[in-house]
Amino acid sequence: MSQFENVSVTKQANVYFDGKVTSRKVTFADGTVKTLGIMLPGEYEFGTAAAELMEITAGELEILLPGSSAWQQVVGGESFNVPANASFKLKIHQLTDYCCSYLD
Amino acid sequence: MSQFENVSVTKQANVYFDGKVTSRKVTFADGTVKTLGIMLPGEYEFGTAAAELMEITAGELEILLPGSSAWQQVVGGESFNVPANASFKLKIHQLTDYCCSYLD
Repeated sequence: MSQFENVSVTKQANVYFDGKVTSRKVTFADGTVKTLGIMLPGEYEFGTAAAELMEITAGELEILLPGSSAWQQVVGGESFNVPANASFKLKIHQLTDYCCSYLD
Repeated sequence: MSQFENVSVTKQANVYFDGKVTSRKVTFADGTVKTLGIMLPGEYEFGTAAAELMEITAGELEILLPGSSAWQQVVGGESFNVPANASFKLKIHQLTDYCCSYLD
């Protein structure tokens, strides 16, 4: 799906790490939320509240998921899940365009 | 208006200047288009096809509009127009969150 239909978009961006990571909140008719974001090259750590599905639209990165000691490579077209109430690390090698879904 | 309702959002971002400027395309029910974008500190030049209204949600920048020799300061909450088929320059001093409307 290249486009989300019949949604609301919050005008103000979410900004992290001095703008090296930014995203827009998209709210669906059923109340669920996704964010469409950009991560510039660098290393970041994020914490989750709800569990998350991270779909990589484009880019190249490595991730270190909670409970794991091995970095995994992820590229455009792939996705990964992060459990709730956890933190995960990312090494962005190429600008990464992502879609994050927040799972109940 | 803090949110756009009943719109479509293109999943893939628009990326310019190695990711220092990125935006998301928002299409309204009446077919009109806006982009919600981020400009990181730096100097950029853009060209227009249709005339554009640039609304600055947050940030601090200077602009040099076509036909003008004086840079103008613009801050969050302000906006400016750019005529069709023209180019304009920007000096972004603070991360700038913007909404661009394409005018017929």
